[in-house]
Amino acid sequence: MSFDTLIEKIKEKDNPTVVGLDPKLEYVPTFIVEGAIAKHGETLKAAAKAIYKFNKELINALYDVVPAIKPQCAYYEMYGHEGVKTLYKTIQYAKKRGMYVITDGKRNDIGATMEAYATAHLGRVKVGNTEIEPFAGDALTVNGYLGTDGISPLLDVCDKYDKGIFVLVKTSNPSSGELQDKIINGTSVYRTVGDMCEKWGEGRVGKYGYSSVGAVVGATYPEQLKELREALPTTFFLVPGYGAQGGGAAAAANAFDKNGVGAIINSSRAIMCAYKNEGCDERDFAAAALREALRMKKDIQDNVR
Amino acid sequence: MSFDTLIEKIKEKDNPTVVGLDPKLEYVPTFIVEGAIAKHGETLKAAAKAIYKFNKELINALYDVVPAIKPQCAYYEMYGHEGVKTLYKTIQYAKKRGMYVITDGKRNDIGATMEAYATAHLGRVKVGNTEIEPFAGDALTVNGYLGTDGISPLLDVCDKYDKGIFVLVKTSNPSSGELQDKIINGTSVYRTVGDMCEKWGEGRVGKYGYSSVGAVVGATYPEQLKELREALPTTFFLVPGYGAQGGGAAAAANAFDKNGVGAIINSSRAIMCAYKNEGCDERDFAAAALREALRMKKDIQDNVR
Repeated sequence: MSFDTLIEKIKEKDNPTVVGLDPKLEYVPTFIVEGAIAKHGETLKAAAKAIYKFNKELINALYDVVPAIKPQCAYYEMYGHEGVKTLYKTIQYAKKRGMYVITDGKRNDIGATMEAYATAHLGRVKVGNTEIEPFAGDALTVNGYLGTDGISPLLDVCDKYDKGIFVLVKTSNPSSGELQDKIINGTSVYRTVGDMCEKWGEGRVGKYGYSSVGAVVGATYPEQLKELREALPTTFFLVPGYGAQGGGAAAAANAFDKNGVGAIINSSRAIMCAYKNEGCDERDFAAAALREALRMKKDIQDNVR
Repeated sequence: MSFDTLIEKIKEKDNPTVVGLDPKLEYVPTFIVEGAIAKHGETLKAAAKAIYKFNKELINALYDVVPAIKPQCAYYEMYGHEGVKTLYKTIQYAKKRGMYVITDGKRNDIGATMEAYATAHLGRVKVGNTEIEPFAGDALTVNGYLGTDGISPLLDVCDKYDKGIFVLVKTSNPSSGELQDKIINGTSVYRTVGDMCEKWGEGRVGKYGYSSVGAVVGATYPEQLKELREALPTTFFLVPGYGAQGGGAAAAANAFDKNGVGAIINSSRAIMCAYKNEGCDERDFAAAALREALRMKKDIQDNVR
């Protein structure tokens, strides 16, 4: 009924960051890709197997330090249904290691269909008399363009299974302002959607003051991040845009409340590809990812405190 | 570079309609579901196999009359990666039967990630030196909340492989107005996004006057449909909301230009579940679907001409 579970994992690791697992095959060390191709040929299965091995080793290296992963659906769908199987297996493995899983799908549709997405990513589906978790994420990113009846089915599932959602409010990309910064009756579109998040979260606030309805707000727009942190007191933020996209820790720090809570900062490429950035032996990729995760943790902490 | 391929398939069948394949297991006739469970147990695999069998028979019954299918990703994801495999197989089968495939995913993300979605659903991915089509749809529905750099990667793929996109403009659900009807500088949000579609379509217009950038506009809002048809002359419309959602043929007729071109009307449940609505033997489901598809074709034609 809130983001308490996530907040507790963040407190336990003393680290409000999440690792984005957006594994293009180009990010995977050559020896893993070549090994998979040797076994399965130049197929989607080979790509999916290589990515799973990469993810698993990253999780093994990181789970002690980082509380959550955020697999981005697009990069798994890019390798077809075999890739989607790797998404599923990655989620299972991360949860086995005690990590919180934010499935980054930015799903959106009309009510009946949104119910299917909610079931797919956060809920359980019935086959005969058996209930099965199709993907079993802990939270899902969604797009609120369709309004309340595109969000309600998610809230039911969040209430039932203690899950959360993050609604796109102010995204981190350069042209996010084209629609999101436009003014409606004196209020920006992003703020209008942000206000909807507060409303959807009513009656769903947990012991740390945050509801199960969060918002995606990019670190690349520090002023808006500050404005939204003040305007949306019960909305937990998922903050992309730190690192590779250009947002700094000082900017990201705007996402936190006066108690240093209220947000989780994402880094994807900088951690996954740390071995490339460092120029170390590619077999050292997991240790390089850990070094970058620790550097990021300190960078965020230094700016938040 | 346009929707010419789709328009030609529509002309060939003299039928501007598309069948939405949104197969909840409850829609699949009992004998198919029970057969699959007998073989695979109460598993996601059983659900996925049952749905594929259902889809295949529907396609066999319909491909001679209906030019296109629109599988809705949510209903496949609801059955996990096995369900997503059925999405893939359904697309392959429909294309083998000469149908145009609109993958209804309403995908959206920042540029680099949108490139991955474009590759997944419309493009080709490289594994080693082999290029593979992960899902191989002909068009994809997308959400434009992130602005131009969330759309550009799709345009590149559309140009390269002769594919199309449909951007959510005015959706068919009851609360679509919460954000979409709001006014920005005297213009509605839906019209603002509609104008973006015209812009994104520039230089991509085919011989029938429509670009490869289409729009989703619901039949449940006939006035807005009429307004948008006049305002967006080069934007082809995908029109949901006919039938089960309450939009009539007279309303849907507003989607067409003076030549009777420019739109395709979707029906999902009314066709998939025609056997339930008719109350006929469930083994007659495919013939019932055809009867409903023919009734719908006539209903639309009577109102457009």
